Amino acid sequence: MIGYGFMGAAHSQGWRVAPRFFDLPAQPSMSVVVGRNSGAVTAAAAKWGWEEAATDWREVIARDDIDIVDIVTPGDTHAEIAIAALEAGKHVLCEKPLANSVAEAEAMTDAAARAAERGVRAMVGFTYRRVPAATLARDLVAAGRVGEIRQVRASYRQDWLSDAEGPLTWRLQKERAGSGALGDIGAHAVDLSEYITGLRLQSVSGILDTIVTERPLLAEGIGLSGTASAERGAVTVDDVAIFSGRYGSANGAYAPLGTFEATRFATGRKNALRIEVSGSLGAVAFYLERMNELDFFDATLPPTEQGFRKILVTEPDHPYVGAWWPAGHMLGYEHGFSHQVVDFVTAIAEQTQPHPSFADGLHVQRVLDAVERSSATGSSWVPIQS
Amino acid sequence: MIGYGFMGAAHSQGWRVAPRFFDLPAQPSMSVVVGRNSGAVTAAAAKWGWEEAATDWREVIARDDIDIVDIVTPGDTHAEIAIAALEAGKHVLCEKPLANSVAEAEAMTDAAARAAERGVRAMVGFTYRRVPAATLARDLVAAGRVGEIRQVRASYRQDWLSDAEGPLTWRLQKERAGSGALGDIGAHAVDLSEYITGLRLQSVSGILDTIVTERPLLAEGIGLSGTASAERGAVTVDDVAIFSGRYGSANGAYAPLGTFEATRFATGRKNALRIEVSGSLGAVAFYLERMNELDFFDATLPPTEQGFRKILVTEPDHPYVGAWWPAGHMLGYEHGFSHQVVDFVTAIAEQTQPHPSFADGLHVQRVLDAVERSSATGSSWVPIQS
Amino acid sequence: MIGYGFMGAAHSQGWRVAPRFFDLPAQPSMSVVVGRNSGAVTAAAAKWGWEEAATDWREVIARDDIDIVDIVTPGDTHAEIAIAALEAGKHVLCEKPLANSVAEAEAMTDAAARAAERGVRAMVGFTYRRVPAATLARDLVAAGRVGEIRQVRASYRQDWLSDAEGPLTWRLQKERAGSGALGDIGAHAVDLSEYITGLRLQSVSGILDTIVTERPLLAEGIGLSGTASAERGAVTVDDVAIFSGRYGSANGAYAPLGTFEATRFATGRKNALRIEVSGSLGAVAFYLERMNELDFFDATLPPTEQGFRKILVTEPDHPYVGAWWPAGHMLGYEHGFSHQVVDFVTAIAEQTQPHPSFADGLHVQRVLDAVERSSATGSSWVPIQS
Amino acid sequence: MIGYGFMGAAHSQGWRVAPRFFDLPAQPSMSVVVGRNSGAVTAAAAKWGWEEAATDWREVIARDDIDIVDIVTPGDTHAEIAIAALEAGKHVLCEKPLANSVAEAEAMTDAAARAAERGVRAMVGFTYRRVPAATLARDLVAAGRVGEIRQVRASYRQDWLSDAEGPLTWRLQKERAGSGALGDIGAHAVDLSEYITGLRLQSVSGILDTIVTERPLLAEGIGLSGTASAERGAVTVDDVAIFSGRYGSANGAYAPLGTFEATRFATGRKNALRIEVSGSLGAVAFYLERMNELDFFDATLPPTEQGFRKILVTEPDHPYVGAWWPAGHMLGYEHGFSHQVVDFVTAIAEQTQPHPSFADGLHVQRVLDAVERSSATGSSWVPIQS
Repeated sequence: MIGYGFMGAAHSQGWRVAPRFFDLPAQPSMSVVVGRNSGAVTAAAAKWGWEEAATDWREVIARDDIDIVDIVTPGDTHAEIAIAALEAGKHVLCEKPLANSVAEAEAMTDAAARAAERGVRAMVGFTYRRVPAATLARDLVAAGRVGEIRQVRASYRQDWLSDAEGPLTWRLQKERAGSGALGDIGAHAVDLSEYITGLRLQSVSGILDTIVTERPLLAEGIGLSGTASAERGAVTVDDVAIFSGRYGSANGAYAPLGTFEATRFATGRKNALRIEVSGSLGAVAFYLERMNELDFFDATLPPTEQGFRKILVTEPDHPYVGAWWPAGHMLGYEHGFSHQVVDFVTAIAEQTQPHPSFADGLHVQRVLDAVERSSATGSSWVPIQS
Repeated sequence: MIGYGFMGAAHSQGWRVAPRFFDLPAQPSMSVVVGRNSGAVTAAAAKWGWEEAATDWREVIARDDIDIVDIVTPGDTHAEIAIAALEAGKHVLCEKPLANSVAEAEAMTDAAARAAERGVRAMVGFTYRRVPAATLARDLVAAGRVGEIRQVRASYRQDWLSDAEGPLTWRLQKERAGSGALGDIGAHAVDLSEYITGLRLQSVSGILDTIVTERPLLAEGIGLSGTASAERGAVTVDDVAIFSGRYGSANGAYAPLGTFEATRFATGRKNALRIEVSGSLGAVAFYLERMNELDFFDATLPPTEQGFRKILVTEPDHPYVGAWWPAGHMLGYEHGFSHQVVDFVTAIAEQTQPHPSFADGLHVQRVLDAVERSSATGSSWVPIQS
Repeated sequence: MIGYGFMGAAHSQGWRVAPRFFDLPAQPSMSVVVGRNSGAVTAAAAKWGWEEAATDWREVIARDDIDIVDIVTPGDTHAEIAIAALEAGKHVLCEKPLANSVAEAEAMTDAAARAAERGVRAMVGFTYRRVPAATLARDLVAAGRVGEIRQVRASYRQDWLSDAEGPLTWRLQKERAGSGALGDIGAHAVDLSEYITGLRLQSVSGILDTIVTERPLLAEGIGLSGTASAERGAVTVDDVAIFSGRYGSANGAYAPLGTFEATRFATGRKNALRIEVSGSLGAVAFYLERMNELDFFDATLPPTEQGFRKILVTEPDHPYVGAWWPAGHMLGYEHGFSHQVVDFVTAIAEQTQPHPSFADGLHVQRVLDAVERSSATGSSWVPIQS
Repeated sequence: MIGYGFMGAAHSQGWRVAPRFFDLPAQPSMSVVVGRNSGAVTAAAAKWGWEEAATDWREVIARDDIDIVDIVTPGDTHAEIAIAALEAGKHVLCEKPLANSVAEAEAMTDAAARAAERGVRAMVGFTYRRVPAATLARDLVAAGRVGEIRQVRASYRQDWLSDAEGPLTWRLQKERAGSGALGDIGAHAVDLSEYITGLRLQSVSGILDTIVTERPLLAEGIGLSGTASAERGAVTVDDVAIFSGRYGSANGAYAPLGTFEATRFATGRKNALRIEVSGSLGAVAFYLERMNELDFFDATLPPTEQGFRKILVTEPDHPYVGAWWPAGHMLGYEHGFSHQVVDFVTAIAEQTQPHPSFADGLHVQRVLDAVERSSATGSSWVPIQS
């Protein structure tokens, strides 16, 4: 594993726990964690249970006893590491966003395509696809239970920037973070909407906005948190991204519109990723703050008996659930990381392509890029290369 | 209409509005409102739209131009008025509770039975039966959609006595109010549970308790509200009633248990009448604070698709709804009083027995009486005469 | 009252009921209902309780015994009637939308301004402002409880067009209906968002779309409902309207964005008008399908105690509520029409300007017009005249 | 760890994960898992990550390198193992119920008291105390935020026995399971209600009932699941337990009543443990199916702003939460087992008494026993020894 921040903790938990609950075709071992700071990475190895710590990812990639490289570093380093790892014949799991630019994502996707020819697998870490309720939503749509899709609503709302005196961390600086709410959480909304509907966005129109344009600098300089200093600096990323998109049509059907909102200023909303898909025969609505539930509306029932049905997605036959606890016992945030490990290791063993592929990740990147260009051109509709 | 308090307002609204939205077989006119205090009853007639005011109910009952007597006075006067009215050949709608004692209720039921032989109708005002969602719950149970009934949970919770310094109104004095939470709101829970299930309680075990035993007397003496004085008096009714009951069995099936709670000390619960019926094939859950919704669980669906379905009971084919507004437009508290008028007038015109009958009201009275006796005998199980 | 459709029923109920529960400074009497079809309007007068029926609105407007004209006809007739009535010195309550075109709405607003100089009042019927929970939302925002506004989300979603074989009624024909979801329900979302925030939209960018472009013609020709024929015709209004808007800034504060969606294809959503306002100190969220509740988030509480608070808006001190029932007793759709009568009659008696004014209605019309122009120009941002 | 069933999986996960997220004063190592069946326990050791497997718990308890014994066997074996382990100077974590009889639980409590004198700790595994929302509920009550307690409602409802043709497993046989819903899930409701309120039940009145009295025997004989045979046997435990209890009074305050229901026949309810505490100043309501939320009603706020506040219990300062993920990221069922490990290990290291103690577990056992005796004596009130 390259990197060891918040995502490193989540991925480590996935690697540690998945083999305990699922029968994997191969047993992963948590070999090496890599980071630039020797002391910190050694501490991380101990804390998160990796056998070794290392500071040079190139050396680690070159090792024969390493089969899988899990990349959880910031987005601007993904391309270099992932391409090198794939070329070294390592299977790569890369945290989202795939990259900070479309060009990098394209190069990674090319590398993944070449690697696939040699049976080397690449996958990008949109773990919300593997929340059982989200997977069930996709299964219901794929089974035709909502009929022809007419509309999609996707939003991801948090509120941790609501305090205008919160400090100017690197996440608010474009040169480091790439973008703000758009890339950080909007990317999840885009990917999950495409996964659940099975459709891909063809064009978008939208606007990015920065609500609090200046914030106190960190006393310590660049960082993720810390003490505010008296000086102030400019926020250079978006606080909120609002856009609409036109999906492609499935088999000549109507090409539906989707609405998207990503924000860190939705006071009181903590992790409110919400996807609702309305169709001619029904609707599904997923909500991450109630991640063990799925709302399903079946419009084929008698009108007097219709209603949104709150499915508690904890039955043994629900996706992934049977491996865990009895019905009615809740799963949490990190379970998706175990499911990701299960599917990735299974795909490697069975020599199939895991999803989301780097091509899926590239597509999301292109959507984000198109939103930025739309915002820069008065919300004009910008087509997305497919 | 005899009486003109809170219930007088609700009944007046029912009589006024029902003919506007429903096609009634006969047009009621709001003739006379009766009360002891001449000034007050005259004002009430003007406010609530009655043509005349009168102070002597006996005179009014004797009038030839009066066909229907609607009794909304306190419970201790119901028996005398209702029996006299029935004997005078007037159809009688009597607000719940039917009476303050079983003996009175029995006399009223006898009078109703005699009147019925002459085509004179009597009905008791448990209007919650006519909230469309409650009626739908009953319809689903009656249609076998929950299968064999295994359990019933009924509770009616309010919090308006939470403040221990609230004054000692007549509602807290046994000689006037008869009982406390038990008769005032517990009666609704009993009746509605029996209506929805189609079963009758056979025996009960329970406890009554008074949480705040002393309160400030009203400066004005006896009354429903007013200024607290420095003196205190004893609360002589129950603040909370908790009991279990065994229902009769339908066709040799299991005779299910029901749980009941009536309280005015459920902090934060304002009008929380809740009935849940669990059966072998499904469940229904009604909740008065969300009276336009009904939760229905269909256990015959595939396990991965089961869930409580929130039916918005506002479709044209839902009970009573078609006469009102388009789908998705909410009804409120007073609509049940219009539905009551519709069903009462229709039963009179069609010469059928409206429900709930006085016999139904008597049965509720017997349940309440049995709960009091159980509480007085250490929660022993007390059978209910049927 | 001119007109007697669905809105005629709602307005009649408002006029009938308001004086029973509220102490009005003047007692309205329900004099004349006007319609072109003599038989139908006579029946409507009987059904909805008007003393007379008439077929010529000009004659009625000329009568000395008429003080108030309530217009509930289709939108294309509003301007002519309202202007004539105002010029005849009648107070005018005009159902929304104010008109089918901006030009008409401007003429009406001019007429209202001239009338106001003579003490003649004009008001437009956005009744959702008078749902107590919506009024409370506005009061909380006005009292600074959400702080500086950062974002607004408004949507109004229904599903009654989901069936692609539903017939082509006049509501789906542009020449009669003006627009589709945009004007019919989007107008409510715009008005209510502006009422609650106290801000006005300055510019918009959006898209209109027609999901089902062809439907069966009605066998009976033009109408609101009926039997489908074998022939099909083109739907010429929008099925869905999606747009973003920039509000004006209050006192140099940030000028927030709002998102809007109006649709009749949101499967399972019946009357889902939802407004959420996020601010620096809190948030409010109103939802019409649970119209007796308001969600309020107070970000000034200790972080461990923060949460959306579900206020049951049925306390005596809540807006309008004290006149109705005790705490915990629900109000429904039509109560807003009584509140509208109360406020309109009170403004007339007190010689103040009732809201929403015709100028407010004109502003909404301009917003809708700007959305149409934006949609026609690739979602460009279109400024709104103020 | 002695035992390796469902609870063994949950405890193993607790031991494995806790040290990764929390800074423990001592590092536990997962040494030996013990079971009678050599093959099965070896497989369990591999699956759940224990270093060794063993078949004789006495030998393991005698080992010097073992400091802690975690007992997850069926209830009828707890006493023997726990007492032996405590006498051998091992700290003991014992899964609930503490024992199958009061006598056994008394002996265990005595052993724990003797052990405590030597610094040896004993704790019983009511893990729901350590769901952050439940802990927060207790903290709010302890801080006086609900004021004087007036009522408690506790229920634990599941539906996995709803199918009358489900087989007769050992859980439905009294000689093995001790009791049915009462001991299995009712015990949790009792313990959690006492933990949150800080009060102890003094007496109870209730009824046990068996809804489906005969079920198909398992083809394989005794077991937890399997194929139904043609023969049927008698269900000898309760399917539903309904009881009321009187809590002790705190400092001369009112001694409140609590209502309890434990059932496995609540169709559609999967793991519905719900505790609501109403007090003079507020209320808290916990619901296990939404375990990341706590409803809190603060009756000291202005009446127009009161409402149940849905606290998302995922803030860094909420109990246990800071060690896990950022705000808004959900925890699941098994996190409580990590918290249990944290508190147990910390208590051992700090030489304090962890809760719930064996005395707490004994008290719960006495409550269950009193409920059985009450049910056997017509729901008479049975005092509970303290």
